[in-house]
Amino acid sequence: MAMRALPVGSLHSIMAAVGIVDSGNHMAVVAVSLFVTLLCACIVLGHMMEEFQYISESVTAIFLGFCTGIVVLVTSSGASSHVLQFNEELFFIYLLPPIIFNAGFQVKKKSFFRNFVAIMLFGVIGVFISVAIITAGCKFMFPKLGLEKLVIGDYLALGTIFSATDSVCVLQVLNQDDSPLLYSLVFGEGVVNDATSVVLFRAVQKLALKHFTGMEVLQICGSFLQLFFSSTVLGVAIGLLSAYIIKTLYLARHSTDREIALMTIMAYLSYILAELFYLSGILTVFFCGIVMSHYTWHNVTESSRVTTKHGFATMSFIAETFIFLYVGMDALDVDKWNMVQITAGNYFGLFMTLIVLILVGRAAFVFPLSALSNYMRKSSDTKITFRQQIMIWWAGLMRGAVSIALAFNQFTSSGDAKSPEYAAAITITIGIVLFSLTVFGTATKPLMHWVLLPTSRSELGESEPNTPKDFAFADFHVPLLLGSSQQTGSPHPGPRRSSLAVLLSAPSNIIHDGWRSFDDGYMRPLFGGRGFVPYNTDVLTNAEDDAAYPFHSPFHSRS
Amino acid sequence: MAMRALPVGSLHSIMAAVGIVDSGNHMAVVAVSLFVTLLCACIVLGHMMEEFQYISESVTAIFLGFCTGIVVLVTSSGASSHVLQFNEELFFIYLLPPIIFNAGFQVKKKSFFRNFVAIMLFGVIGVFISVAIITAGCKFMFPKLGLEKLVIGDYLALGTIFSATDSVCVLQVLNQDDSPLLYSLVFGEGVVNDATSVVLFRAVQKLALKHFTGMEVLQICGSFLQLFFSSTVLGVAIGLLSAYIIKTLYLARHSTDREIALMTIMAYLSYILAELFYLSGILTVFFCGIVMSHYTWHNVTESSRVTTKHGFATMSFIAETFIFLYVGMDALDVDKWNMVQITAGNYFGLFMTLIVLILVGRAAFVFPLSALSNYMRKSSDTKITFRQQIMIWWAGLMRGAVSIALAFNQFTSSGDAKSPEYAAAITITIGIVLFSLTVFGTATKPLMHWVLLPTSRSELGESEPNTPKDFAFADFHVPLLLGSSQQTGSPHPGPRRSSLAVLLSAPSNIIHDGWRSFDDGYMRPLFGGRGFVPYNTDVLTNAEDDAAYPFHSPFHSRS
Repeated sequence: MAMRALPVGSLHSIMAAVGIVDSGNHMAVVAVSLFVTLLCACIVLGHMMEEFQYISESVTAIFLGFCTGIVVLVTSSGASSHVLQFNEELFFIYLLPPIIFNAGFQVKKKSFFRNFVAIMLFGVIGVFISVAIITAGCKFMFPKLGLEKLVIGDYLALGTIFSATDSVCVLQVLNQDDSPLLYSLVFGEGVVNDATSVVLFRAVQKLALKHFTGMEVLQICGSFLQLFFSSTVLGVAIGLLSAYIIKTLYLARHSTDREIALMTIMAYLSYILAELFYLSGILTVFFCGIVMSHYTWHNVTESSRVTTKHGFATMSFIAETFIFLYVGMDALDVDKWNMVQITAGNYFGLFMTLIVLILVGRAAFVFPLSALSNYMRKSSDTKITFRQQIMIWWAGLMRGAVSIALAFNQFTSSGDAKSPEYAAAITITIGIVLFSLTVFGTATKPLMHWVLLPTSRSELGESEPNTPKDFAFADFHVPLLLGSSQQTGSPHPGPRRSSLAVLLSAPSNIIHDGWRSFDDGYMRPLFGGRGFVPYNTDVLTNAEDDAAYPFHSPFHSRS
Repeated sequence: MAMRALPVGSLHSIMAAVGIVDSGNHMAVVAVSLFVTLLCACIVLGHMMEEFQYISESVTAIFLGFCTGIVVLVTSSGASSHVLQFNEELFFIYLLPPIIFNAGFQVKKKSFFRNFVAIMLFGVIGVFISVAIITAGCKFMFPKLGLEKLVIGDYLALGTIFSATDSVCVLQVLNQDDSPLLYSLVFGEGVVNDATSVVLFRAVQKLALKHFTGMEVLQICGSFLQLFFSSTVLGVAIGLLSAYIIKTLYLARHSTDREIALMTIMAYLSYILAELFYLSGILTVFFCGIVMSHYTWHNVTESSRVTTKHGFATMSFIAETFIFLYVGMDALDVDKWNMVQITAGNYFGLFMTLIVLILVGRAAFVFPLSALSNYMRKSSDTKITFRQQIMIWWAGLMRGAVSIALAFNQFTSSGDAKSPEYAAAITITIGIVLFSLTVFGTATKPLMHWVLLPTSRSELGESEPNTPKDFAFADFHVPLLLGSSQQTGSPHPGPRRSSLAVLLSAPSNIIHDGWRSFDDGYMRPLFGGRGFVPYNTDVLTNAEDDAAYPFHSPFHSRS
């Protein structure tokens, strides 16, 4: 029985230590038991807290983690703080993939792709702007506040760390059904933003900059674009492969579990293959999720559909709760706090500097890019109003586990801070994350009511149907019609003709229409999808099913 | 980025090595990708192989793993054999719990408890008999065949290792609907047997015997009984707690995912708490599964029910496939084969000795204990016929991952064999497992047809309804009636009166009836269950659902 001395904070290492024979390392089992018990408590408490409308589940989890951290710290007389240390590998390998995959799987595709251009503007260009502002601000202010030994690479890393929006927390605050346009913009941006941040962060680390030239900016951009494109293609390819295999082999003939297993494993395969090819696993698994929900999900039995829908959501939910619990427990890492060698005044100064930089860095791209996006949209009811711009600005201020993970990656080695400056950077990151999640996060819902309530419902972009289910019934006959027109050799020619004229004013609409006829004519017959699977005869059953359970909205279970 | 030199065979360590920055340890990512790809291939191939009735999925997975092992060995010129080494911690912490939990969750409770006495006889007394025979046989034969340096503790360990039936493989060969009595006996025995073997193994290791006295046998028995009882109580307690929480808090009001998450996490909690208190996690999680399927499962929404039913089955399915793939790849551990210092003739002798001992050791308890069980059963149609006894004997001959895990635990430290004798013991264990799974496993289905086909259907114990679903409709009104009678203060008194007289001839039936009235009168009103949940109005929907999908039987998805 190999009982290594393990860093107990890393759960997989803890579990590896839980052998079948009695071990000297029984503390590890205690830690896992504590953690699993806390997870249960979080779910139960989170449910009870939901009565108080403004306390989000993430705040509950952070608070519970924080309290447990204090108890552990007190009972162990300050020795065990290291036990609860954040582990970025655990985060990136186990916790993030299910969250992002589920996000892609449950996202309203129509809404997402209709706002694709705006999402990309916010999620890619926006991050570049934000990184530039935060990096410049840090480089200017930090030496004046006692942090002198950081190099340009560290400042760039800080810029990236504090530009990574917490998409997980955004999901808990906004509601897909109440404000679909806002949700799709903020959430879509969050996912792309996560990927952009991680990719940028890698690019920055790879170049190991001592100085900063225009050539290197171009290099970063080029490398970013290449990564973005390849990751997307890989995710789409694996999603299509899963749809094709399940459609062709008709796995449910022998076992419905096999379908679910194949979907789950292929989703993870997309992530791990992206890592294998040095791509962005986050982007890959996100697009794999989108493709799987568009094709694969319609090729499986009704039981498999219910199971995957809720199973993936549950995995994501557990991972989210785990992360917030973790972040809360991690705030009390006394070793790092003891290493920090700057005065409380300077510390407060650093903290406020970063808060201001985050606020300014986000404002600097949300308002100009919204204007640009509005300029490109033809119809006035899909334009982003000023009130909505304020909400987009505000909802993206939260910083979460991605920031902490990147900070640990940059400023620690094996979990220990490399220097007093780095310890300060870590503790400030944790502080900013806790502050933004609790203060910004808790204030979002009241603010949204205050800012958006005076506006009419139509201004919120309510013109599109509320759920993919509604959407399904609204145009249920369309794919069938188009499918048959394709078979008789006359593909739907309408929207393609005056393409060039409309392209300049409303590029995403024309892309959407073109995609629809391509999808119905070529993709669905090959890869399956709604209306193209022989044993998909249960649309009505499905509708009854939803009507019978008003307790949960099928595609956004946590309101 | 902490990039430790990791034992690559352990998947969680591999994954820990898959960081977000480029690592020198990219081989680890390659290994995970390979493994995940193989899992996909196993599922697809397993599906296609199902056309050939007699090739079970486990054999496909072993074969695929074996071929991959050869390819890796050849391409790496013999160096990489260690990459694919079996990791017992991974097995016991990640792979076994979902399999055993799902077994408890999907088992036909009525069948299981009706045959409870017989199952306990086979699974507990049987293992003791088998261990005694194999230990004695090894102690007598092994020194004559070149293995001289083993002590009594090693022989006892070998006895335990080769008494652990592979319940996973049994599930794949037998069918719950075709032969319910056989299935329930063989499978029930398999689960209890797993737990007994592990508990016995621990007891043997703890005592660190140099000689062997009656006192120590008593000690082992006492420690075993205590463990068995405590583990069961813990599992039942956590299962009931989950039912109570979900019934009282009515989690689905806000989120159906929260119910599923709570069920999953509490199931794992039962396992990890058992480990915390040095109990048998396997037994605990098995009984937790039984209680959850009896109470908790009826307290959740229909969506949650479908999701947990298929979700747990899928997790179990993936874990099973993983194990067999692993066992197949592990057969080619050249390091250990090189360490073995005995002649091929002796090796063959050892191998045949063990095969004979396994056959004899199992026969020595199946036939006498079946006779004992028949003696205790009153009605002739629930007696175990001689043909069925042959099948029980045969179906339990397979040795699987539990044997390998225990062998690694006893004979290696950190994956390396401690001595040439120990290397021999490991390689022989792997050989026996492969042989028994492929030869005994593949022969079981044809044998079952040949032995059982001449018997009439009634002799197979077909008198009870086929699925829990049927059972549900057969007595759907009973719990409601009983529940109301309990509310008006007159609990169902019938079966309790003449208890003592019947108890001697048919103890399990009387226990069953007594339990039923206790369950309906006290347990269901408190913990929920079929017919006791306010929003459980979907029995008909459920029935339609099953009728609409004839492709899978709801409680035993892989036929």
